[in-house]
Amino acid sequence: MNIRDPDRRLSEAQRTDWLRLIRSDNVGPRTFRSLVNHFGSASEALVRLPDLARRGGASRPSRLCTEAEARNELAAARRIGVSLLAPGEAGYPPHLATIDDAPPLLGARGNLDVMERPMIAIVGSRNASGAGHKFAQTLAHDLGDTGFVIVSGLARGIDQAAHRASVARGTVAVLAGGHDRIYPLEHEDLLAAVLESGGAISEMPMGHVPRARDFPRRNRLISGAAIGVVVVEAAHRSGSLITARMAAEQGREVFAVPGSPLDPRATGTNDLIKQGATLITEAADVINAVRPIIRRPVDLPAEEPEPGEPWTEEPAASDRARIIALLGPAPIGLDDLIRMANAPPAVVRTVLLELELAGRLERHGGGLVSMM
Amino acid sequence: MNIRDPDRRLSEAQRTDWLRLIRSDNVGPRTFRSLVNHFGSASEALVRLPDLARRGGASRPSRLCTEAEARNELAAARRIGVSLLAPGEAGYPPHLATIDDAPPLLGARGNLDVMERPMIAIVGSRNASGAGHKFAQTLAHDLGDTGFVIVSGLARGIDQAAHRASVARGTVAVLAGGHDRIYPLEHEDLLAAVLESGGAISEMPMGHVPRARDFPRRNRLISGAAIGVVVVEAAHRSGSLITARMAAEQGREVFAVPGSPLDPRATGTNDLIKQGATLITEAADVINAVRPIIRRPVDLPAEEPEPGEPWTEEPAASDRARIIALLGPAPIGLDDLIRMANAPPAVVRTVLLELELAGRLERHGGGLVSMM
Repeated sequence: MNIRDPDRRLSEAQRTDWLRLIRSDNVGPRTFRSLVNHFGSASEALVRLPDLARRGGASRPSRLCTEAEARNELAAARRIGVSLLAPGEAGYPPHLATIDDAPPLLGARGNLDVMERPMIAIVGSRNASGAGHKFAQTLAHDLGDTGFVIVSGLARGIDQAAHRASVARGTVAVLAGGHDRIYPLEHEDLLAAVLESGGAISEMPMGHVPRARDFPRRNRLISGAAIGVVVVEAAHRSGSLITARMAAEQGREVFAVPGSPLDPRATGTNDLIKQGATLITEAADVINAVRPIIRRPVDLPAEEPEPGEPWTEEPAASDRARIIALLGPAPIGLDDLIRMANAPPAVVRTVLLELELAGRLERHGGGLVSMM
Repeated sequence: MNIRDPDRRLSEAQRTDWLRLIRSDNVGPRTFRSLVNHFGSASEALVRLPDLARRGGASRPSRLCTEAEARNELAAARRIGVSLLAPGEAGYPPHLATIDDAPPLLGARGNLDVMERPMIAIVGSRNASGAGHKFAQTLAHDLGDTGFVIVSGLARGIDQAAHRASVARGTVAVLAGGHDRIYPLEHEDLLAAVLESGGAISEMPMGHVPRARDFPRRNRLISGAAIGVVVVEAAHRSGSLITARMAAEQGREVFAVPGSPLDPRATGTNDLIKQGATLITEAADVINAVRPIIRRPVDLPAEEPEPGEPWTEEPAASDRARIIALLGPAPIGLDDLIRMANAPPAVVRTVLLELELAGRLERHGGGLVSMM
């Protein structure tokens, strides 16, 4: 379905199957979508997954999430008020549903009405200056007053300042771990304040303690949920710059707050402006830039059965071998691979899916793939 | 002549006539060029000027600069080492010669070799912060090391810091008054240091004490001499922003140094970046931007006799009356005026010149004119 339908809901059986599929080994959001589009449903994909992974050369049988495990996670989530929502369901941020790797099920908690309102992300250094804190507060407050929901990462520094200044108007915290594993621990109070009129979202299972690699992954949800991302103070190579890069890849507006060239906390934001981000000094700069975008209808991605791209049922062994031989540690684009393999696109895509499910393929930005 | 010729020099008689013409009432650089192009020489223009001004309705006879006055100024200039140079002559900054209202005679002093090298202007607040001073110093020093001559206005604050940091490599001070009327007075030492390996230029007569309105006029020479203008710290509505605007009108690159939105001294520079100026944080940003421009040959404007545009010798009284009736205090463009007057362009241009010499016409940027 391509049109947002507020009454659209997965059945409980579908939701359990969706959760099982996304929690199974080597299934990320992109693979999830490929499988469901190919086999018509998550339940059918679960049946076929072990065979695909075996053909891809998995060293050991893929571990599938069991029905009992999925039911347990759904129950545990429900107990602390977390709903596991599919793209298109009420409470799933509409813009987030449009990114390539939107979580098939998103854990959402709090006042889910805010998820439907236009969001602006405000991110920045954890060790921000007093001026940075103050600017983030003023900006979050003023954008909140204009009706925007502030989305951020519940971190120390800029994130915290942005959430605090917008709790009254509704703000959304995006978590890198499970809903019951808040990081940093001292922000449990902040989260409680956020949840009063706003919400929190996570794609991770209950009980998941966030690791370093989960933060960049989480950052794509911050930028994806928003129509624009404001970076306030960011040093060279900081996490906020990853969020800005993802925002640009997702077609989101990127805004940066300038600072003195002699202030190392402004290096990242000044660089962003050099690279084309919009310099802002006040909320009005953001509002003027996003005004034309706000009312643009959100085009939701296709979800269930829809007739997918043509796939081949099982590629010939010689095709598979030729495609695998072309893959290596250096990322290569799908188009190049199809051309070099001289094989039908459907065959190449199926082999890549097999390899992915076997845990042998890595997907990169821009549709590039490499062997692990 | 359109091609730069290092051996090109005015004769002494020509230089005296040029000085007489530009020092006469109601003759600015644009009128000067119109008159010389029309009458073929400054000496002929001096003969015809009183009659043109009378036809334009001058309330009293135009005061012409006498030959004795011009000779005195040339001698006074020579005594303190100032040469009065025409565009195209050695020592006249080549880029400055390309602006619409380039001074027909420029007083230049010091090491005139630096005038031939590519220049970058550095301007900014008189009451700059310590960080602003430091940034201007580093930038001027690094650009000087790369071979650029730093041009600025000898003012307190950023100007001073930029000159000081580049005295060894050659820097150019552009004065708002005569060469013997240094402003501010306490910068006589700075000027002496500048002149050791660099130079100073002014279009004003010897003895002219700079008034407030002379500074914006001077600023067009700072931007005009440079291939790019860097604004370091500028508050809202500051003089440096006038220089930036002139730079943009002259087709020069405009660079601005960012600052915190909470720092009022960065309001002007952040605004410039919002309007399209290039954000810079180090000399390399400037160098990379101007590198493609540096070796572009400078196209000098036409100077003496060249067959000019066709002019009519004396417009009919009815034409003159109709054109004057169309003019008022609101600026109007030449093209609109020609269309509305339904008169040949040559007639309109001649009437405008008459009015200008009578002190009744004001010329604005973008070719607009109004009655005074």
